[in-house]
Amino acid sequence: MENFSFHNPTQIDFGKEKEKLIGEHLAKHGIKKVLLCFGSDRIKRDGLFDTVADSLAQFNISYVECGGIVSNPIMAKVYEGVQLAKTEKVDAILSVGGGSVLDSSKAIAAGALYEGDTWDLFIRKGTIEAALPIFDILTMAATGSEMNCGAVVTNEKTQQKYSINSQHTYPIVSIINPVLMQSVSNDYLVYSAADIIAHSIEGYFTASIHPHFQSRLVESIIKTVMETTEILLRDPKDYTARAEFAWASTQALNGLTYSGTAGSSYPNHMIEHSLSAIYNVPHGGGLSVIIPAWMKWYHPQNPEQFARFAKEIFNLETAEEGIAALENWFNKVGTPTRLGQFAIPASDLEKITRNVLGNAEYFGIGTIYTEDVITTILNNAF
Amino acid sequence: MENFSFHNPTQIDFGKEKEKLIGEHLAKHGIKKVLLCFGSDRIKRDGLFDTVADSLAQFNISYVECGGIVSNPIMAKVYEGVQLAKTEKVDAILSVGGGSVLDSSKAIAAGALYEGDTWDLFIRKGTIEAALPIFDILTMAATGSEMNCGAVVTNEKTQQKYSINSQHTYPIVSIINPVLMQSVSNDYLVYSAADIIAHSIEGYFTASIHPHFQSRLVESIIKTVMETTEILLRDPKDYTARAEFAWASTQALNGLTYSGTAGSSYPNHMIEHSLSAIYNVPHGGGLSVIIPAWMKWYHPQNPEQFARFAKEIFNLETAEEGIAALENWFNKVGTPTRLGQFAIPASDLEKITRNVLGNAEYFGIGTIYTEDVITTILNNAF
Repeated sequence: MENFSFHNPTQIDFGKEKEKLIGEHLAKHGIKKVLLCFGSDRIKRDGLFDTVADSLAQFNISYVECGGIVSNPIMAKVYEGVQLAKTEKVDAILSVGGGSVLDSSKAIAAGALYEGDTWDLFIRKGTIEAALPIFDILTMAATGSEMNCGAVVTNEKTQQKYSINSQHTYPIVSIINPVLMQSVSNDYLVYSAADIIAHSIEGYFTASIHPHFQSRLVESIIKTVMETTEILLRDPKDYTARAEFAWASTQALNGLTYSGTAGSSYPNHMIEHSLSAIYNVPHGGGLSVIIPAWMKWYHPQNPEQFARFAKEIFNLETAEEGIAALENWFNKVGTPTRLGQFAIPASDLEKITRNVLGNAEYFGIGTIYTEDVITTILNNAF
Repeated sequence: MENFSFHNPTQIDFGKEKEKLIGEHLAKHGIKKVLLCFGSDRIKRDGLFDTVADSLAQFNISYVECGGIVSNPIMAKVYEGVQLAKTEKVDAILSVGGGSVLDSSKAIAAGALYEGDTWDLFIRKGTIEAALPIFDILTMAATGSEMNCGAVVTNEKTQQKYSINSQHTYPIVSIINPVLMQSVSNDYLVYSAADIIAHSIEGYFTASIHPHFQSRLVESIIKTVMETTEILLRDPKDYTARAEFAWASTQALNGLTYSGTAGSSYPNHMIEHSLSAIYNVPHGGGLSVIIPAWMKWYHPQNPEQFARFAKEIFNLETAEEGIAALENWFNKVGTPTRLGQFAIPASDLEKITRNVLGNAEYFGIGTIYTEDVITTILNNAF
């Protein structure tokens, strides 16, 4: 077990109607004015926006709107939010939406207190020394952003999907009401499941040191996500399943599964980021394509853990059987497993490979993920 | 899944030689003077005290000693610490030891900022509105106190073993170096295993709502503890096993296994507290006696979860088989399963029952744990 430090300061307020407490949470932290970040106008149509506005009004908290954040969020919107946060002198950022809105909010929170170009923080040209406090109401469970300090945004000009991480970008309070997630489409539900599974397996398979307790925790998350995804496909309003799915999603990337591990990397995310940067494919859908393709190439490097995965998750014996079973499960629930399902032509192989090579350097695993390796994995995905 | 709030602000610094960083941690939080709480003089003989003193000196932090805290800690020592903390005007409490030292430190931290009798805080006559900041270096893994806000202390005059819980009594930083735990005797290792298993199963069996993910998490903890206990009995210096044991211990009572559950109670702790209050038996040893005795009485009230336990932990089919397997495991590793092993005579049944009845009221489960029920469970334990 590797030495580690674990400190996750985020307060989670989880359950039915918890969004009504957002004003109280903000007031407790002395917040008077927020930048209210959100995606489409759906939250205005379904009443969530009004609920939030009412709660803010109750505590005399004013807000400035920053709507229109898209999935696979882009820097243009972050720059807009940073400008607004600065000119409007807000005290905090309030994210109402899924992982894309929250990640953009984190970037805005950091950018608002940074003198230079916010993108500097993504390319390590600048350091996050402070950020506006971040609060959020989560409407989709997938990225785990609600209980970690990471944010991923695409620079649409350079087609780079990069990230920030800082002790300053943990949300202060994250509100998770599973009822708000009932309207997530089946497509996005299964993409989310793939994203959570990806968060779970990256460290599980790639770490050179991976304690048994951490493996068991990861397996608990995966089993819960698979089980509840199937229930939710049959009945999107099953509250218990929705809640377990959401909480497992939070656990998958709040640092706990990585505590005591060493040598982890994120190759599946690294490759997928190129797909969403170039083709704007849904992140989770891209991951369900890449995961089996990567596993087929990678498994001989960690045969014991792949055998363990097959046994624990599917009660099967061999690495190959476990990989096939996961791919079958992706197919069964309806998330893609081939690039062709996104109409990405095989002739784009070289273009994607070039983009992934840039990511590999950024992710610090360029010596492992060479052109040959990436080509092999992508060919598995075609 | 029940609504819940989860906020665990403790920073864990885990691993080899981490105790050397205590001065740095304290200095980061602006601490100039600490009350240094510890148990026996063992830490002076084995060099830990000097390591801590050196680290404090490096950051110009002074200390006042409060040694001699015993296991099953008592109020006399807490009062002494509170007095010292007040007269010496310390900024923080530094606990160097196991759960008893840390629990006493928490009580001292709260008592130092409370006007009245510190015991008031235990009997809910007073409320903890503030506490001195608490830091600790853990030398034994069992109670989970290093990542929660609870503390249990015995009032030796009234033979009441009661607790405090407050958002103000979370440790600020807990240092967990598994190497420091290598000198724990086999007896205390297996008592600790029983304590961790007790923390894990109380909610698992008694909650009226217990999500699958939480059940899986509990099972992961129990499997890890049983596996590593057996390794450590063979080789106390196995670092990986020691580290996994310690981290599982922390996870067993940091709030995570209880998130989303409803209706949990702590009947095994409730009964055991009488044993340690009256006879000063080791807490974990008392628990390994009570757990099977309680299970034999309780299991028909939650047959599904007991069948699940039998299956997941021991790959057995029935509740009765699972209970017998756990009792056998306790016997195998050498922690007691009968009151006679503590030389407690059957003629004391009534005396113990009277004490437990007081606890049952304190724990808020007096209507379930009547004299008849307690007698039945204690008879199972004789």
